[in-house]
Amino acid sequence: MTRRVSPTQSGLDPTVAARLKRDDQGLVAAVIRDNHTGEVLMLGWMDDEALHRTLTTGLATYWSRSREAYWVKGETSGYRQRVREVRIDCDGDALLVSVDQVGHACHTGAYSCFDSGLLMPAGPE
Amino acid sequence: MTRRVSPTQSGLDPTVAARLKRDDQGLVAAVIRDNHTGEVLMLGWMDDEALHRTLTTGLATYWSRSREAYWVKGETSGYRQRVREVRIDCDGDALLVSVDQVGHACHTGAYSCFDSGLLMPAGPE
Repeated sequence: MTRRVSPTQSGLDPTVAARLKRDDQGLVAAVIRDNHTGEVLMLGWMDDEALHRTLTTGLATYWSRSREAYWVKGETSGYRQRVREVRIDCDGDALLVSVDQVGHACHTGAYSCFDSGLLMPAGPE
Repeated sequence: MTRRVSPTQSGLDPTVAARLKRDDQGLVAAVIRDNHTGEVLMLGWMDDEALHRTLTTGLATYWSRSREAYWVKGETSGYRQRVREVRIDCDGDALLVSVDQVGHACHTGAYSCFDSGLLMPAGPE
């Protein structure tokens, strides 16, 4: 099901929902890290329902802003993320999700979405 | 200076600016991690100018959505973040910033903003 589920329709635990500080699109940022290496793999976006599905299925599930659909990571590629831990930050606008990553996290084929994006320090002249 | 600087006014390297995928508020998410431990410390928000200042001063600088002002982390508390590496992700809506954190990162006094926010696994009944 890809249709957007509103916070009031979502099955997310109300005590968790009350801690979320959503942006204008109803989303919080989810930082995904490798449970074994601690490496930051990617950043995704979750609404109440995506977080609910992540917590209850144990598979990292996002709201895709570009496709406007729920997206179970690896659903088509097979590169799933089995969730081992979920944390929320002090002001409720970010999640930290530790996962067992199957294969690579990035759609480019890289292990992490940050692998090829070095901005600083600058490379040799 | 706290007044918002537009992307066109910012001194950010145009080749970097061209890679940013900003949200409706002109911001990208910045994941901050400890350069030594790899631990994720916090999530902040940067616009072009905050990223420009971060890259050129070497001190992590954010756009505070609540205070609507640029904010050099530790400016008042002393808990600064000296920037060692900045990466951008594959689709340009997130940064990964490795810092030498002076003291603690969280305004609550915790080392990380995620320290006390365990949502899963649930604790003992």
